Amino acid sequence: DAGSLWLYRWYYSKLYQRVLGFAIFLILALAFVEFPSSFTRTADLRYRSQPWQPPCGLTESIEAFCMLVFLVDLSVKGYLVGRAQLQEHRWLLAYLVVLAVSVVDWTVSLSLACEEPLRVRRSLRPFFLMQNSSMMKKTLKCIRWSLPEMASVGLLLTIHLCLFTIIGMLVFTIGETDEAQDKERLAYFQNLPQALMSLLLLLTTSNNPDVMIPAYIKNRAYALFFITFTLIGSLFLMNLLTAIIYSQFRGYLMKSLQTSLFRRRLGARAAYEVLARDTPEAVGVNPEDFLRVLQKTQLSEIHKQAIMQKVLSYEGRPMLADEFQKLFDEVDKGVIKERPPKPQYQSPFLQSAQFLFSHCYFDYLGSLIALGNLVCICVFLVLDSDLMPGQRDDFVLGILNDVFVLYYLLELLLKVFALGLRGYLSYPSNVFDGVLTIILLVLEISTLAVYRLPHSGWMPKQYGPLSLWDMTRLVNTLIVFRFLRIIPNVKPMAVVASTILGLIQNLRAFGGILLVVYYVFAIIGINLFRGIIVPPGNSSLVPNNSSARCGSFEQLDYWSNNFDDFAAALITLWNVMVVNNWQVILDAYQRYSGPWSVVYFVLWWLVSSVIWINLSLAVLLENFLHRWDPQNHKQLLVGAHQ
Amino acid sequence: DAGSLWLYRWYYSKLYQRVLGFAIFLILALAFVEFPSSFTRTADLRYRSQPWQPPCGLTESIEAFCMLVFLVDLSVKGYLVGRAQLQEHRWLLAYLVVLAVSVVDWTVSLSLACEEPLRVRRSLRPFFLMQNSSMMKKTLKCIRWSLPEMASVGLLLTIHLCLFTIIGMLVFTIGETDEAQDKERLAYFQNLPQALMSLLLLLTTSNNPDVMIPAYIKNRAYALFFITFTLIGSLFLMNLLTAIIYSQFRGYLMKSLQTSLFRRRLGARAAYEVLARDTPEAVGVNPEDFLRVLQKTQLSEIHKQAIMQKVLSYEGRPMLADEFQKLFDEVDKGVIKERPPKPQYQSPFLQSAQFLFSHCYFDYLGSLIALGNLVCICVFLVLDSDLMPGQRDDFVLGILNDVFVLYYLLELLLKVFALGLRGYLSYPSNVFDGVLTIILLVLEISTLAVYRLPHSGWMPKQYGPLSLWDMTRLVNTLIVFRFLRIIPNVKPMAVVASTILGLIQNLRAFGGILLVVYYVFAIIGINLFRGIIVPPGNSSLVPNNSSARCGSFEQLDYWSNNFDDFAAALITLWNVMVVNNWQVILDAYQRYSGPWSVVYFVLWWLVSSVIWINLSLAVLLENFLHRWDPQNHKQLLVGAHQ
Repeated sequence: DAGSLWLYRWYYSKLYQRVLGFAIFLILALAFVEFPSSFTRTADLRYRSQPWQPPCGLTESIEAFCMLVFLVDLSVKGYLVGRAQLQEHRWLLAYLVVLAVSVVDWTVSLSLACEEPLRVRRSLRPFFLMQNSSMMKKTLKCIRWSLPEMASVGLLLTIHLCLFTIIGMLVFTIGETDEAQDKERLAYFQNLPQALMSLLLLLTTSNNPDVMIPAYIKNRAYALFFITFTLIGSLFLMNLLTAIIYSQFRGYLMKSLQTSLFRRRLGARAAYEVLARDTPEAVGVNPEDFLRVLQKTQLSEIHKQAIMQKVLSYEGRPMLADEFQKLFDEVDKGVIKERPPKPQYQSPFLQSAQFLFSHCYFDYLGSLIALGNLVCICVFLVLDSDLMPGQRDDFVLGILNDVFVLYYLLELLLKVFALGLRGYLSYPSNVFDGVLTIILLVLEISTLAVYRLPHSGWMPKQYGPLSLWDMTRLVNTLIVFRFLRIIPNVKPMAVVASTILGLIQNLRAFGGILLVVYYVFAIIGINLFRGIIVPPGNSSLVPNNSSARCGSFEQLDYWSNNFDDFAAALITLWNVMVVNNWQVILDAYQRYSGPWSVVYFVLWWLVSSVIWINLSLAVLLENFLHRWDPQNHKQLLVGAHQ
Repeated sequence: DAGSLWLYRWYYSKLYQRVLGFAIFLILALAFVEFPSSFTRTADLRYRSQPWQPPCGLTESIEAFCMLVFLVDLSVKGYLVGRAQLQEHRWLLAYLVVLAVSVVDWTVSLSLACEEPLRVRRSLRPFFLMQNSSMMKKTLKCIRWSLPEMASVGLLLTIHLCLFTIIGMLVFTIGETDEAQDKERLAYFQNLPQALMSLLLLLTTSNNPDVMIPAYIKNRAYALFFITFTLIGSLFLMNLLTAIIYSQFRGYLMKSLQTSLFRRRLGARAAYEVLARDTPEAVGVNPEDFLRVLQKTQLSEIHKQAIMQKVLSYEGRPMLADEFQKLFDEVDKGVIKERPPKPQYQSPFLQSAQFLFSHCYFDYLGSLIALGNLVCICVFLVLDSDLMPGQRDDFVLGILNDVFVLYYLLELLLKVFALGLRGYLSYPSNVFDGVLTIILLVLEISTLAVYRLPHSGWMPKQYGPLSLWDMTRLVNTLIVFRFLRIIPNVKPMAVVASTILGLIQNLRAFGGILLVVYYVFAIIGINLFRGIIVPPGNSSLVPNNSSARCGSFEQLDYWSNNFDDFAAALITLWNVMVVNNWQVILDAYQRYSGPWSVVYFVLWWLVSSVIWINLSLAVLLENFLHRWDPQNHKQLLVGAHQ
């Protein structure tokens, strides 16, 4: 009925979706502000100042606003889906439950004056993000489908690990009588849990040469044990995990393309049926009716005109279903953007100048000058690296910078003259150049105004930590991006670049899942490990790490890898995810917090490495192959659809 | 003609191919024996004894034999290809050149009494392996085809690296006035080459948390710089490389399948034409002629019988081309191996016993017992890990081992009784069990004979380093493999396992390329870096690494990672390939050998990581998808062929 339709339109309007998105962003961002808040300059335990804590009620009121938005969202969605079908939508039911739990937790929190020990709702928040994105739900479903195979690979990995642990234990306990050398070897195979951990770390290659060194020093043959283990584990089994995830994701992009194509055709057919009812003979759609309806739709102006032209070519006779369907193919066609016309100049001199400056060689000259600029920066970086900051002479560099900025300004003006202002702005690369040039000009002028003209012994650097001079140099390096415009001219580069661009669209779902996993693990980590790591005696602020064992948490100054606030937890999780040297963090938490902390980190490694390496690779492969061999893909798409 | 045909048959006979393969293996294995030979117990510089050096002429005579074989091979191949087409076969020409260079180098070597400074032929040897395998040539071609795209990704990577280096240098030189903290930060961004190296290492994540710690301690925001760099570099660009290699390899397996199918059909058609000439009407092949020819071919007996049955179904009339073609489809069909019949027993008691022991539940019981055995081993490993070797009491474990071995023996006998000896041996899993049981039995009996019966305080371990007792325990752990037989019963496990099995076939080409790359780089490394690393003063054999800087080559005892002989070079290259902690090796060689050694290691990282990660992943994906979705693959195969 009309009310539902209006509600439907309003629900999918841009304004409403933006409000919803903002509420989701807000409630997720709260984690940085809430106790323990992340507003300190450093995460290092030794130098950290007392952070600002929000007063009780501030974050809670923001939360209340967000939950109100979610409540409205839930009720509208529930109304649209209908009461009868409500039970089939598990996501909606879960939405209801999560929201209810959050509200209850919120009231508890308020009634205890924000002093409650545990906030359940914090770890539930990512659900709101997940619930709102259909792509993320689909990705999640894909992961769920591949769970059985992943579990079987996991089982194989476990068998592999256990087998090598037992063999390793037996092999390395044989020569125990030789005490001198085995002292070190026993560091890795002391007892069963430690041996298991050593090999688990070897699976991630994070202790690679170290674990085999003591045995290898004694006899070359021991290296074979470790190499075989790494080969089977990393080469076969880990890559098998990737293959499994990819095989699930292979049809993923194609399937979603198919579904959207199918839905669009269904919609067109329904529209045809509705419109055909009005024509007296009921054999087709009256073009006038169609054009009237078309004016009300929200298609872009260019597509509308293309469709109208096609309709007019039917010369007023009613359209049949096939023809109606074909009209909408126009929407799929790529739009060739028309450039605004070049300004017309009368004088032949001006005309030839216009030809000269709108030619592509002029672009190449600009790129060459930019390259020269970069080389200058590099040369001065190399020259200055040996000098102390006080001894440097920035005279030549200052002059050169001025020259380059002047050239960029000249280029900007000449191009505007040749192409006209609107023509100039119609190229995205030109817009980038223009903005960069103007920023550089402003910075350069203010530099000159503050520090006067360059002269020998000119050192604008001395004034303050982030001076205008440094900013100029930083912006100057952005000139590197000018080279990106060469890419579309080289065929393989173009494919590679377009893959990266296409990836960014598909990456939203993937990034969302990564965000959710990070969020949940960070919150759990904060609850488990906050304040566990104790800084060394506060008496000495100078790091006295000389007494600590080499390669330990203390010696490596990893104090900032803690779970004391949300931002620090994110960075710590990142460092564990990258896997290199994670044994250091693991060891420290085992010492400070107890042996069971290892479960959290291993779990995080499993989840994040699966998501990080495999999912990203799968999405990338899918995108690349789609772009690389579009003919083949399209064929499959049409074939599967028929 | 007949002579060529005979030569062709002889060339592709098993004997000749085996001799050729053996010669290739021999000439490659020489690298371990030749100066500097690898026959020392350890590769560690400090403990290494003077290795045995082969007398001049020993390795040379083996080489002479191998080169003789290759000479024969080359001349036969050249004769078969024909003089006219010789110029088109570049591989053959290269073969000739390599062989000639080797012979010249060999004579020089002999005339200088094996004292020549450089042996060119050593690095040419892998060519003989490559030349002999058509799969490896194809794989190489695949890699060559994807070079343009890989170069473009490499260019993007270079731009990415340079851009971040410049930005990093500028950002980290801004706050130079704060001397106390920047001392450490300047360790990574001291000058341009060092900054570039730091970020290159970060690209491999091998210095991940360390490189960002000094900056991160000062301000949280600096972490974003490093995280962005890793994200773009590792997530996008490195995976893009994988995608490119995979897209080249996608059709690889399929194409080679197609080619072999096409060749076989062509061969069948040619055979048909030859045979059809003899029949008077020239419309088909006389079945008798065909059967006569069939008897002379080298097909397996089962296939021959299947084809003969089919021929007989045509009832003597001449066969047409289509029917002739179809005959050979029988060869493709899988062979269902028939089990030998179970022995027939008369007594009803024996019959029911036979039913009982040939049932699968009896297998499950065996697996359960094996599991118990494993658990026992693990429990004793855990219990014994806290005790000194002298204090352990092996009485209980000795008794338990005896019990388990007795059970395995009983199981063996019962199964032979139930299935018959031939029936028992027709299952590969049973063969494995049987061999294992017999080895265990022999070891156990000899243990008992040497150490007497187990009694309290029984310690068979004390006698010698690798005692019979230890061997028994080692062989006992092999019982783990019994669990592999459960795999085919679980559906996803079966797919995963069959992928791994199928992989091993395709892996030959891949492993060959890896071998070639390792070989060449190891030889180059030996020539460049032999004897460069100097051990610390020989006066003290006890490692005095306390004075060395933490995380340095000396402190980590990496002395065995050197290029002083072939085996050590292989292990060093492996450790660099695995990438973890390679900065330590890199740093040491920069100090001992000069700054340009970095080129060798970075080159090796590029080559090996491309081959290691990407090629292996591509081959694995191809195999997995082939097995996962064979229907789709077969369709494509047939479609492409028509």
